[in-house]
Amino acid sequence: MEKKTNKTIGQSASVFAKGEKINSSNFTGTVWVNMMGRTDSIMHARIGNVTFEPGARTNWHSHPGGQILLITGGKGYYQAKGEPARLLCRGDYVEIPPNIVHWHGAGPDSEFAHIAISLNTDEGGVIWLPPVSDEEYRSIKQ
Amino acid sequence: MEKKTNKTIGQSASVFAKGEKINSSNFTGTVWVNMMGRTDSIMHARIGNVTFEPGARTNWHSHPGGQILLITGGKGYYQAKGEPARLLCRGDYVEIPPNIVHWHGAGPDSEFAHIAISLNTDEGGVIWLPPVSDEEYRSIKQ
Repeated sequence: MEKKTNKTIGQSASVFAKGEKINSSNFTGTVWVNMMGRTDSIMHARIGNVTFEPGARTNWHSHPGGQILLITGGKGYYQAKGEPARLLCRGDYVEIPPNIVHWHGAGPDSEFAHIAISLNTDEGGVIWLPPVSDEEYRSIKQ
Repeated sequence: MEKKTNKTIGQSASVFAKGEKINSSNFTGTVWVNMMGRTDSIMHARIGNVTFEPGARTNWHSHPGGQILLITGGKGYYQAKGEPARLLCRGDYVEIPPNIVHWHGAGPDSEFAHIAISLNTDEGGVIWLPPVSDEEYRSIKQ
């Protein structure tokens, strides 16, 4: 039962709306995004609720102004380049300093949902890098 | 049962840890705060999980760099000075532009929990103003 719950974060179970499936070469697998709020020149922030299906993940990337992740459901990982992956569960958060190359996404058998808060966006948008290879992903110590 | 659930957001029911009761003249009633992450000169953001017991609320205040609220549980209100109060429930969010005088807090019969993201904190900290009087609070159209 526990495993099934982790796998399925429906619209009703999520705290925030799941939004729409995204179609982008910057992600592997199926990812849903709900942008919450405007992108403007005053607040300098972009906030989105992101839901990853099992095995789905971002490419490697970095943020010129930093980003914060607040985990709202499921089980997933954050990994900074050259460091071990960190297991993340509901209630955890991650501070990603500016210009740190990293990825985040679901575990292989669990869905994963987080709010992503990109900060200081006047310093520039995401810098996208190549995908996290299957070999890199499989090498996570679970 | 539904009403009881709204009234009691325990540690286990909240997405994020409730933290500690705060003792401050900038709030009315009982409020819990869990600061998530460091305050530093790089990220320019302060993120906290705030839980208000029924009737609890902030004083009137403003943020020089703006703030975003993400509602994670219960039922409460946001009111900008001179405007009607907005009812807020789990899954809602509010963008509070810089320097807008406002308050937020629980409904009279319901607990309320939100993540508060103060942005562009290099532009200054919260400017606290007088409490929301019982008369102002009772005048909310529910």
